Amino acid sequence: MTVEPLSPTLTDDELALIDAYWRAANYLSVGQIYLLDNPLLHEPLAAEHIKPRLLGHWGTTPGLNLIYAHLNRVIRDRDLSLIYITGPGHGGPGLVANAYLEGTYTEVYSPITENADGMRKLFRQFSFPGGIPSHVAAETPGSIHEGGELGYALVHAYGAAFDNPDLVVACVIGDGEAETGPLAAGWHSNKFLNPVTDGAVLPILHLNSYKIANPTVLARIPQEELESLLFGYGYRPITVAGDDPVNVHQQLATAFDEAFDQIAAIQRAARLDGETGRPLWPMVVLRTPKGWTGPKKVDGKKVEGTWRSHQVPLSETRTNAEHMAELEAWLRSYRPDELFDEHGALRPELRALAPTGQRRMSANPHANGGLLLRDLDLPPFTDYAVAVDTPASETAEATRVLGTFLRDVIARNPDRFRLMGPDETASNRLSAVYEATAKAWLAEISPDDEDLAPDGRVMEVLSEHLCQGWLEGYLLTGRHGLFSCYEAFVHIVDSMLNQHAKWLFSSRSLSWRRPIASLNYLLTSHVWRQDHNGASHQDPGFIDHVANKRPEVVRVYLPPDANTLLSVADDCLRSRHYVNVIVAGKQPGLTYLTMDEAIAHCTRGLGIWGWASSTNGEPDVVLACAGDIPTLETLAAADILRRELPELGVRVINVVDIMRLQPDTEHPHGLSDHEFDALFTTDKPVIFAYHGYPWLIHRLTYRRTNHEHLHVRGYKERGTTTTPFDMVMLNDLDRFHLVIDVIDRVGDLADRAAVLRQRMVDARLAARRYTRDHGEDDPAVADWTWDPAYQGPSLSQDARGETPR
Amino acid sequence: MTVEPLSPTLTDDELALIDAYWRAANYLSVGQIYLLDNPLLHEPLAAEHIKPRLLGHWGTTPGLNLIYAHLNRVIRDRDLSLIYITGPGHGGPGLVANAYLEGTYTEVYSPITENADGMRKLFRQFSFPGGIPSHVAAETPGSIHEGGELGYALVHAYGAAFDNPDLVVACVIGDGEAETGPLAAGWHSNKFLNPVTDGAVLPILHLNSYKIANPTVLARIPQEELESLLFGYGYRPITVAGDDPVNVHQQLATAFDEAFDQIAAIQRAARLDGETGRPLWPMVVLRTPKGWTGPKKVDGKKVEGTWRSHQVPLSETRTNAEHMAELEAWLRSYRPDELFDEHGALRPELRALAPTGQRRMSANPHANGGLLLRDLDLPPFTDYAVAVDTPASETAEATRVLGTFLRDVIARNPDRFRLMGPDETASNRLSAVYEATAKAWLAEISPDDEDLAPDGRVMEVLSEHLCQGWLEGYLLTGRHGLFSCYEAFVHIVDSMLNQHAKWLFSSRSLSWRRPIASLNYLLTSHVWRQDHNGASHQDPGFIDHVANKRPEVVRVYLPPDANTLLSVADDCLRSRHYVNVIVAGKQPGLTYLTMDEAIAHCTRGLGIWGWASSTNGEPDVVLACAGDIPTLETLAAADILRRELPELGVRVINVVDIMRLQPDTEHPHGLSDHEFDALFTTDKPVIFAYHGYPWLIHRLTYRRTNHEHLHVRGYKERGTTTTPFDMVMLNDLDRFHLVIDVIDRVGDLADRAAVLRQRMVDARLAARRYTRDHGEDDPAVADWTWDPAYQGPSLSQDARGETPR
Repeated sequence: MTVEPLSPTLTDDELALIDAYWRAANYLSVGQIYLLDNPLLHEPLAAEHIKPRLLGHWGTTPGLNLIYAHLNRVIRDRDLSLIYITGPGHGGPGLVANAYLEGTYTEVYSPITENADGMRKLFRQFSFPGGIPSHVAAETPGSIHEGGELGYALVHAYGAAFDNPDLVVACVIGDGEAETGPLAAGWHSNKFLNPVTDGAVLPILHLNSYKIANPTVLARIPQEELESLLFGYGYRPITVAGDDPVNVHQQLATAFDEAFDQIAAIQRAARLDGETGRPLWPMVVLRTPKGWTGPKKVDGKKVEGTWRSHQVPLSETRTNAEHMAELEAWLRSYRPDELFDEHGALRPELRALAPTGQRRMSANPHANGGLLLRDLDLPPFTDYAVAVDTPASETAEATRVLGTFLRDVIARNPDRFRLMGPDETASNRLSAVYEATAKAWLAEISPDDEDLAPDGRVMEVLSEHLCQGWLEGYLLTGRHGLFSCYEAFVHIVDSMLNQHAKWLFSSRSLSWRRPIASLNYLLTSHVWRQDHNGASHQDPGFIDHVANKRPEVVRVYLPPDANTLLSVADDCLRSRHYVNVIVAGKQPGLTYLTMDEAIAHCTRGLGIWGWASSTNGEPDVVLACAGDIPTLETLAAADILRRELPELGVRVINVVDIMRLQPDTEHPHGLSDHEFDALFTTDKPVIFAYHGYPWLIHRLTYRRTNHEHLHVRGYKERGTTTTPFDMVMLNDLDRFHLVIDVIDRVGDLADRAAVLRQRMVDARLAARRYTRDHGEDDPAVADWTWDPAYQGPSLSQDARGETPR
Repeated sequence: MTVEPLSPTLTDDELALIDAYWRAANYLSVGQIYLLDNPLLHEPLAAEHIKPRLLGHWGTTPGLNLIYAHLNRVIRDRDLSLIYITGPGHGGPGLVANAYLEGTYTEVYSPITENADGMRKLFRQFSFPGGIPSHVAAETPGSIHEGGELGYALVHAYGAAFDNPDLVVACVIGDGEAETGPLAAGWHSNKFLNPVTDGAVLPILHLNSYKIANPTVLARIPQEELESLLFGYGYRPITVAGDDPVNVHQQLATAFDEAFDQIAAIQRAARLDGETGRPLWPMVVLRTPKGWTGPKKVDGKKVEGTWRSHQVPLSETRTNAEHMAELEAWLRSYRPDELFDEHGALRPELRALAPTGQRRMSANPHANGGLLLRDLDLPPFTDYAVAVDTPASETAEATRVLGTFLRDVIARNPDRFRLMGPDETASNRLSAVYEATAKAWLAEISPDDEDLAPDGRVMEVLSEHLCQGWLEGYLLTGRHGLFSCYEAFVHIVDSMLNQHAKWLFSSRSLSWRRPIASLNYLLTSHVWRQDHNGASHQDPGFIDHVANKRPEVVRVYLPPDANTLLSVADDCLRSRHYVNVIVAGKQPGLTYLTMDEAIAHCTRGLGIWGWASSTNGEPDVVLACAGDIPTLETLAAADILRRELPELGVRVINVVDIMRLQPDTEHPHGLSDHEFDALFTTDKPVIFAYHGYPWLIHRLTYRRTNHEHLHVRGYKERGTTTTPFDMVMLNDLDRFHLVIDVIDRVGDLADRAAVLRQRMVDARLAARRYTRDHGEDDPAVADWTWDPAYQGPSLSQDARGETPR
């Protein structure tokens, strides 16, 4: 099924050279998988030259190397800035080989010299203890994409292209990966890419027909359906197919010329000729055999062109003489002597095929985004503060306030900040951003639409995968952003978070990789205020998921009100190389702290709220809280206790940065035991009202002295469509239950306590009855505010007529 | 953009009736969103008739109702068994309305009678505290799909259709949902549907052009691209478009007739005429306005046909007289007097439009799968046992052994069991199943392929989303299955697990919903044996995720070897209405228990392994373990301790069912404190080697008496491409470190202990050096086995010459 180009694009000499370059990359790839020594095969191959444990993936590698060699030609011819995203990231040997051929590898890792000794080390280190991973990874120069978990190549590519008008991102999509959901949806990213201000993405769908053990869907539908599908996704596919290298080289060179001509024409039309509308972007479909140029048959079974070449085609190369001979023949089939000189250096005529300097895909600074990272120009977040005269007496919608800050962040940083949201930016009350920008949209616009434009800086698509993937690609290439998401549905990207956190952690130890901007989540429309959407929308578990990642790279914040949210958000936008999770409400909520107090509180990460406590000495009980709704309920409980059991010394602690709860030996933000004990006491009951699943607090504190007396209330997976207060009651997080918890856990209380306890039980029943009768919460509960006359024990002790113990 | 059918399909009378039915459903839908009382508008609308809190989604509802009414016609005409999956599940009022119109709602919920009083209750309960959720949910008769989290409508539909040759699944896909990854990939499910033995899926892509606050991609690409995309997905789209009800009724009736004719023709050709190959299935594209028939404008802004109709078009209906009047006009526009008699019963000529009995979509038993569930015919799992003469001396690949059992499960249950895997069934060493069946595959087959057939019962696609979604649909319609997945990548479906677990939990309290088969996960290729693939493939956190769900519906098992895996798997396949997570290795691993011992051990869920302990009395230290590799390392540590510190009383406990660790007040499988204390002591050090993140064990046990002395080793997110033993060393889970942990935590040890400790430190260094030098583990470490001469204290006390304390 080969297609002859009409007239050859490559001269015979060019073709011979590019083929030699491809052979060199293939040789180095096979060498990495198999060889411990004898890298240039100057000696006959022997068992001791071969790795005892063969790890790596051959099948996809020759295709990756072929594309790489041809992209080099295009880069040189057109002086392009181009990065290469390898969806089949298990083809690690290929990308390492190419970085080595370009000299980048030696520049970055000086022991891996461009000679026989360096080549030996290059081979040995691959998939070897103490060496490098088997996949393309942070360790691989030129990569922003690991590809161990498949699905995200294309969204990473688009993320990299946004706001990089001079960049082209070539993105190889394996036909296995093409079966995943995120990849299937990611094709439509072209409806969000502006040809004027964004760069270009060139998808290269590599159909080698097999995944690990099965044929692939896209390789096994008729060509007509495939082309129709890709056209339906908004692309103009150019197909290259064959298994004869000479023929495929010509086809691929022609196809790339055509594709890059089209890209140039699209960009020229949009940028110079003022053409508007969404172009049909080119893409390449490449059909070549899996494991091409490897062993055709092994032990009588067909290997090249089948799934059997996926990993290591010859597996018994140290013990089976036939396998060893086949390996040697395979390696020699690339004619290493023609490729490398006697010292092992790539021959100069081949070296000349690679671009130089930062034009090398392995050295393009966009693939080491920290190099290009410029700080955000941030307005003073204090300018957006809400006035707080007395705590807990007025309300604000925290995320709506944040929206005004983000509006100006967007306005000041028109080239390096994007806001991502799965159709939820307005729902999450960040609409102020539309005063500064629009939503990116290249598809049709109808007269009824609002706030859509090709150069919009808000990215709205109903796919958390796309939001996350675009943002990752954008961050990894040195820019900034924030992803606002319904709390429950951010679990959709749990696995993507895993991979990004792993990347951040492993790149920390690579001095040549510079830190990038943090991945910032704003989780709102959270569990306690999804009463109207019901149980499917209620899940606070993303925090638990994030807390499992390396402490060096994760941070979780639960600002209780608008001003603390501003302070936390500013901090997160300035931070580097973390995953920051901010959980904040969008509904009207009480404000507690002035801006100055908020800054001080967020800087400490947690602290005693004296104004809400009934003692400034050693308390009888600690009421701790984390999260806006738990804070509300805790304060309302403190209010009841102060009035009804004034002799009880209550300390109120609010926690913004929950990693503070961990020991300082476990997390960089952790409190020392001494600090923790000073706050939470060593022996008094602590009633902790927490936003999420209660056991997370136990997991963070189980080594603390007073853990035994810690009692946590949180979400117990009890929810439905109901009222906000019914939601907290369903999970025993309500003020009345917190008072009951206090009474049940503090000994030696007056008889009045038993009476109060019964009143609390009755209050819960009454509140429930009210909601069932009226369909909304009792205003007496819903509209609770703090008594402005009471401002903590030091101010109001006399007025209370009680001396707190 | 309306398309006139060539000749009308519906007579004028038919059209008038179907329109009336649609109006009835719309009326009941609006009533649910707005009304507390005055259900038939026999009085003028007043504030007290209107809910104080308006919750619900109107925008998608008229479209859902239109489709429902027309499907009723088709069902009656063709006597079809059809279920209706509502991707836009927030259109809850519509599906409830239709179940009520069909009489099913009253049959299931007797207070909701078919008269004015019942209608009043129907309206009031919707999104009301103590009532029903706002979305289509388990509470909704006829539903198997909640649709709160978007993306899974189509995969649920295909799952329902597999092995149900007489069923048609109509699946409404909102254009918002169509942007998600799982939905985009799910279209290709037609490559896995066998027209002979499976039913049909009719996708209905409902383009109302807007999601919450934005236009949708598929509504805003040219019709040519859309049709091309859908053809590329393997469908023949039939488009219906318009905003004039009369015209759209005719078009939709014609389109459905055409689609169902095509389905019938495809099935006839495949089943009777022996036609093979993959057919192009029909589908419908329906373009109608969002919020159709609702308010055209509100407060001067266009609502019908825009995103403003997504939720509640008129929001101030109790306080704003204009809004109230518009609501009344809207409701009266459906002419309720023509639809319901004076008592509130649906008029008989309309009732006659609905199918009857089980043909009603709301009463189709496939949508209450437990009704149809038949037990699996299971072979005796004991037949597959591996012989274990002495513990820990021989190896087996646990999942390979399981594969032989699954092979025969498949053979015995050719109509009700499927095995799902994302291209990993062979990699996970379950290949024995291919002796009994093939992989389902309707796309092209090449001569090199193996084990592919249209009627294969193994489902292999490189998408965890599709595997999970298909299986959910299959289980919810009353069948059985197992999903085998790489442990790290099962996080891809975290959010799907959330939704399924919520469904299971909420359906438990609905007596009319019968329990369904459990969702069984086999997680293999797990963290400790993905040393070859590197960090991206290492993540044991799914257990943590599952443990956050309601304890009534989740179970987690870590069988340490092949026989325990068989026992656990048999138990899971027999269980009902749970999520069962089994984590088991695929690599050769030591076997510990005979089949009888394995059954006893798994029945208890955990227990002391006397043969590996050095005391049968009160121990000095407990070595606990959960998971195959932690068990191996624990036993090797116990071996070292027994030889080197024979005076130390070591008790070895293995845990298979980790929910046993929780208090019995927290989980139905939990041990009582008394039982727990008897096993783990109240004051001795417990060194717990755990498969996953160590803090999960703390979270399960923090209330136990001896928690203070519990020290857990597990995965600390340290990994790369290296050797198996290096992986455990990187995370301090290795045998040598476990011995160090024991020495550090047991007081009063002989001086020899300090010497042993140093030897352990040296052994770790030596092991690491060996791997770095040789690229593989030291065989002395890798090939460790238990000393068959030692079989516990009661047998060998004398031989040891020591009396255990």
